[in-house]
Amino acid sequence: MKAWQWLAPKTLGLVDLPRPVPQKHEALIRVEAVGVCGSDIHYFLDGAIGENRLTSPVVLGHEYAGIVEEVGADGDQALVGRRVAVEPGIPCRRCEWCVKGRYNLCTSLFFPGGPGSDGAVCEYIAVDHEFCFPVPDSISAGTAAMVEPAAVAVHTAALAKIRPGDTAAVFGLGVIGLLTARMLQICGVARVFCVDVLPYRVAAAERYGLNEVFCSQPGSLKEGGASALDWIREKTEGRCCDVTFDCTNSAEGMGLACGAARRGGRAVLTGISGNEMDPLPVSIARRRELCLQWCRRFVHNYPVTIEYILSGALDVDSLITHVFSFEEAQQAFALTSAYGDEVLKASIEW
Amino acid sequence: MKAWQWLAPKTLGLVDLPRPVPQKHEALIRVEAVGVCGSDIHYFLDGAIGENRLTSPVVLGHEYAGIVEEVGADGDQALVGRRVAVEPGIPCRRCEWCVKGRYNLCTSLFFPGGPGSDGAVCEYIAVDHEFCFPVPDSISAGTAAMVEPAAVAVHTAALAKIRPGDTAAVFGLGVIGLLTARMLQICGVARVFCVDVLPYRVAAAERYGLNEVFCSQPGSLKEGGASALDWIREKTEGRCCDVTFDCTNSAEGMGLACGAARRGGRAVLTGISGNEMDPLPVSIARRRELCLQWCRRFVHNYPVTIEYILSGALDVDSLITHVFSFEEAQQAFALTSAYGDEVLKASIEW
Amino acid sequence: MKAWQWLAPKTLGLVDLPRPVPQKHEALIRVEAVGVCGSDIHYFLDGAIGENRLTSPVVLGHEYAGIVEEVGADGDQALVGRRVAVEPGIPCRRCEWCVKGRYNLCTSLFFPGGPGSDGAVCEYIAVDHEFCFPVPDSISAGTAAMVEPAAVAVHTAALAKIRPGDTAAVFGLGVIGLLTARMLQICGVARVFCVDVLPYRVAAAERYGLNEVFCSQPGSLKEGGASALDWIREKTEGRCCDVTFDCTNSAEGMGLACGAARRGGRAVLTGISGNEMDPLPVSIARRRELCLQWCRRFVHNYPVTIEYILSGALDVDSLITHVFSFEEAQQAFALTSAYGDEVLKASIEW
Amino acid sequence: MKAWQWLAPKTLGLVDLPRPVPQKHEALIRVEAVGVCGSDIHYFLDGAIGENRLTSPVVLGHEYAGIVEEVGADGDQALVGRRVAVEPGIPCRRCEWCVKGRYNLCTSLFFPGGPGSDGAVCEYIAVDHEFCFPVPDSISAGTAAMVEPAAVAVHTAALAKIRPGDTAAVFGLGVIGLLTARMLQICGVARVFCVDVLPYRVAAAERYGLNEVFCSQPGSLKEGGASALDWIREKTEGRCCDVTFDCTNSAEGMGLACGAARRGGRAVLTGISGNEMDPLPVSIARRRELCLQWCRRFVHNYPVTIEYILSGALDVDSLITHVFSFEEAQQAFALTSAYGDEVLKASIEW
Repeated sequence: MKAWQWLAPKTLGLVDLPRPVPQKHEALIRVEAVGVCGSDIHYFLDGAIGENRLTSPVVLGHEYAGIVEEVGADGDQALVGRRVAVEPGIPCRRCEWCVKGRYNLCTSLFFPGGPGSDGAVCEYIAVDHEFCFPVPDSISAGTAAMVEPAAVAVHTAALAKIRPGDTAAVFGLGVIGLLTARMLQICGVARVFCVDVLPYRVAAAERYGLNEVFCSQPGSLKEGGASALDWIREKTEGRCCDVTFDCTNSAEGMGLACGAARRGGRAVLTGISGNEMDPLPVSIARRRELCLQWCRRFVHNYPVTIEYILSGALDVDSLITHVFSFEEAQQAFALTSAYGDEVLKASIEW
Repeated sequence: MKAWQWLAPKTLGLVDLPRPVPQKHEALIRVEAVGVCGSDIHYFLDGAIGENRLTSPVVLGHEYAGIVEEVGADGDQALVGRRVAVEPGIPCRRCEWCVKGRYNLCTSLFFPGGPGSDGAVCEYIAVDHEFCFPVPDSISAGTAAMVEPAAVAVHTAALAKIRPGDTAAVFGLGVIGLLTARMLQICGVARVFCVDVLPYRVAAAERYGLNEVFCSQPGSLKEGGASALDWIREKTEGRCCDVTFDCTNSAEGMGLACGAARRGGRAVLTGISGNEMDPLPVSIARRRELCLQWCRRFVHNYPVTIEYILSGALDVDSLITHVFSFEEAQQAFALTSAYGDEVLKASIEW
Repeated sequence: MKAWQWLAPKTLGLVDLPRPVPQKHEALIRVEAVGVCGSDIHYFLDGAIGENRLTSPVVLGHEYAGIVEEVGADGDQALVGRRVAVEPGIPCRRCEWCVKGRYNLCTSLFFPGGPGSDGAVCEYIAVDHEFCFPVPDSISAGTAAMVEPAAVAVHTAALAKIRPGDTAAVFGLGVIGLLTARMLQICGVARVFCVDVLPYRVAAAERYGLNEVFCSQPGSLKEGGASALDWIREKTEGRCCDVTFDCTNSAEGMGLACGAARRGGRAVLTGISGNEMDPLPVSIARRRELCLQWCRRFVHNYPVTIEYILSGALDVDSLITHVFSFEEAQQAFALTSAYGDEVLKASIEW
Repeated sequence: MKAWQWLAPKTLGLVDLPRPVPQKHEALIRVEAVGVCGSDIHYFLDGAIGENRLTSPVVLGHEYAGIVEEVGADGDQALVGRRVAVEPGIPCRRCEWCVKGRYNLCTSLFFPGGPGSDGAVCEYIAVDHEFCFPVPDSISAGTAAMVEPAAVAVHTAALAKIRPGDTAAVFGLGVIGLLTARMLQICGVARVFCVDVLPYRVAAAERYGLNEVFCSQPGSLKEGGASALDWIREKTEGRCCDVTFDCTNSAEGMGLACGAARRGGRAVLTGISGNEMDPLPVSIARRRELCLQWCRRFVHNYPVTIEYILSGALDVDSLITHVFSFEEAQQAFALTSAYGDEVLKASIEW
């Protein structure tokens, strides 16, 4: 089968790989759509996320959907022929965190599209049948692939422990930030203050139904960040927000989330700067007695996410700004990494 | 009355100040004992904690106890003649955080011994009568002054949300670290891994009943920290600890607390590095989906702390390694800031 | 001034009482609107709620709004002339629960319209100025009086600790039940199963935008309850609901809330049966390891409730089915207690 | 092999049953000790716990330990020859509650010694090897069988979410009540108020190190209960307790736990009355805005429980008041059900 392999920073190559043979508990998926994720871009550009480093060619991509072509002997045969959204991380089911219900922290998690693990920018992929979630025909393949980033937003919102009347701030208005902000609205947050450095993302946020949006100065996130905090303080009469979210891919996002949090508030950190260490404003965190909660992908969130998408509450389709054919896959990575043409989500479809 | 004023870094001066006159709701305390705190030392040495900067002479000291000499018309007259442990921070009782029960986050908190607010290294101090907690005669003034740091440890333990069987790691074995470790034992933590860079503190921890103690290499906290994490990983078969505590006064403490926390674990950050920004290992925090909770002094903890001391469960007396007379107050600060003579707590007593 | 006093079960009398004189911290409210609450009806019919028993004439009514006519010397003069929604329970601000932020549990709470405490079905009432919440002119007096029951629903929703994707069941579709169900929708609950015995309330729920509604057999709540549980089990494929709500005024409501809760689920109990003891299905509660949380009115919820009403998210106006003049006040109580004319909320307006 | 079967209320019979053959994932245990539990007594006396009804002969007993004689092909061979404490409930590992980490709520849990499921009062039993917890040689078989009730107490304490300084009340001083009270001490609860109707249990509690103990009038739990609540109110100056525990086997236990809980407090309900419905004081629960949490056995608690026993913190041995031989098994049930000879735990040993 054909597959796009990461070969070196900014370089993918179209290669032939053996078509996978599903094991007894696996489904064989004919891939229909793969979304390009910010973490893919870290690998694409740098070959690494922090200490996780690509050292040999690998197929990227973990936001995917497709048609189940066959299922191994122990799997659910009813899946055959169905379009499925695939939860990409496959846990061991036996370690302490799996049996305690937090399988996203599995000590032996398989995750595709990273060091040593081929991902989904290819024709076929075999995956544990229990992580295939069938969607109705009304859901396109591109939409189904969006369940993955949407599930991150749902998990992010769950970690925020929102209470009625909470106010929120979201830093970073890429796909994860926009979906997070929308989830907050769904969860009853009346005021969601949204910040980004890129004017086109700020405009996209307004179109997406977010009405308190601020563009910090592009090219200077640090100063822009300060102006954003001033804006939030003014909007909240100095109180700041009950819960804040770092959905950026920058080292400053965590500090902004702290700075926008009220005394005794909570910050949820979902963004990935790509660094091992980032600076944290410890004096602010201590004086306000903050609680910081990191988000690691998703856990038990796929069914709920699909429901929110089906009901229309969570719009994912309008975030797919570009669709590339499989042959054009490298362009999808290049465009996304350059923030080109006002891209939000680039989807690769067969 | 006589008072010791901070005049410049490393310089206190003995001065005469007017004796305070208690307002209607205040008690006038004849100070008997003041403990020297790590935050006092930040002021003593640098004149600042982060952005909180001393710009004029001020009396330091907030860990204190004394005898109530008189009480204003609206106060509780039964306090007169009683020895009291004084909760130093006086909240406004009206702001959002006061009425919501988190008065340690009061937007107008008065806290003695910092910028613009005289503290307790003097003969008399007037304070809201409701923040004076009488102790029985069996409690000495020095012990009563120790209620303040002990209350920090009690609040720290409360923020940890300990569950039966939890394991813990404590970084920094000064008075706050030792009291925190002891509180964890009181709360049912079977294994408390304790780390410091100073051999004398490690020895003190063992004498204090902490039996899993590690001395990381003095003079090199970073490498020492790595060796401490190796030790904890080995002791826990790679699992690390359910809850960890930064009780250091160093920039590395927060990172160590993250490094020693298990997947899905919790770190409580009580130490004060004195910096505005410190580096945080965000890749670790994200991959383990950690929760970080800062600790801001104490809130509603004085009665409980006094009970634990009275019952003998929480030993504070053995931590008072040095007693200085009022006239020798400057020596107490100098000794503590130099980690001299194996000092843990230096107490200034009249 | 004129006031309606409860004299005996089912009997109110129009009397002349002295107009209250506001104390220094109080506002004098010219009452414009009072809603009739289910707890008023317990007093109206039986003269008691459990052991709380009326033994002398008293003015009922605690859901009220009006115009501030004057403010005592220590109060906020800016309130004069403003229409305010009044939070009726006035706490002591000094007891343990007040200083810990749960003033609805105050040991000395003043609550109007019960034993020994006159309520609001009268011309004037004096109340602590801090519990007067100004509303914009766009909000009518009747709407402003609805803030009280709406705040109960907001507090109920807060106690439910809702997470994204949770399913819910609400028993009892009176005003509190309807507002609770609406709050659940606001908080992201996709499926709210609603149950009542009265067909007109079921119809009202559908008009109110609740689309999964069940009418259990009128006249037989017990059997009707069983049929409602069957309906919920069928709708949820046997799983039952993450969180359930008793908003009935019947002894069976608590058992239904338990029966509809999933394993490890949570039930919030807001309804008032009027009894001291009600039967609880302990075997179900134990086998499912349920958590039951009672709701006591509201705490810190008024500002948020007003916001939700102002934004249009929380519709209270359509629940006011009947408006009576002050002279007709007794009819408002009689109609509500008889469930007459498809009444939801009866509002008494001047 | 020989086994004692329940045949009818109060009647066991010694019978011959086929020796079980371990499946591939099972260990074959040669039973050494079985403790008699209160829930066994419900079956022994009435043949039922609520709607769970014995309709055919069954071997009772689920608190057991023994030597692993062999292990199936897929099991851990290192277990052979080891003494193990066995966690009796075997979950399906696939249902929603299993994968979410709450396997004690498994929809297909196998639990021995109840309707349709033979228990451990026999010579051999086969059980999933992962639920066999090896203990060191220093632990006797009788002690190892006590891990089961001790794990209930550990889970009970975990559900209480204890914070430093909390006060507690425990109703019912059988084995579960005593172990729960001891766990509370381990978790830092300074004051544990303990109540029972039987003078010998009250005396046992004092010997067990519980120093605030009250004997309510035997023969009249209701009045005795009222006197116990008076005692707790007096001891706490009217405040009552932060967290309370029903460890009785009576219908009144739940009401006492509510009555002893402070405003905003928490009650954990571990006792089993044997009824489907018990009366709950709803007015108290509502006015105090209580939270009630039921306890369903244990979940993930065995390793921690064994640690607490090994360290000496949790004494289980002194609670074994009577040891019977296998031949005398019926006497163990008869004695326990009659509260004879000051029995706490009767252990049947081979």
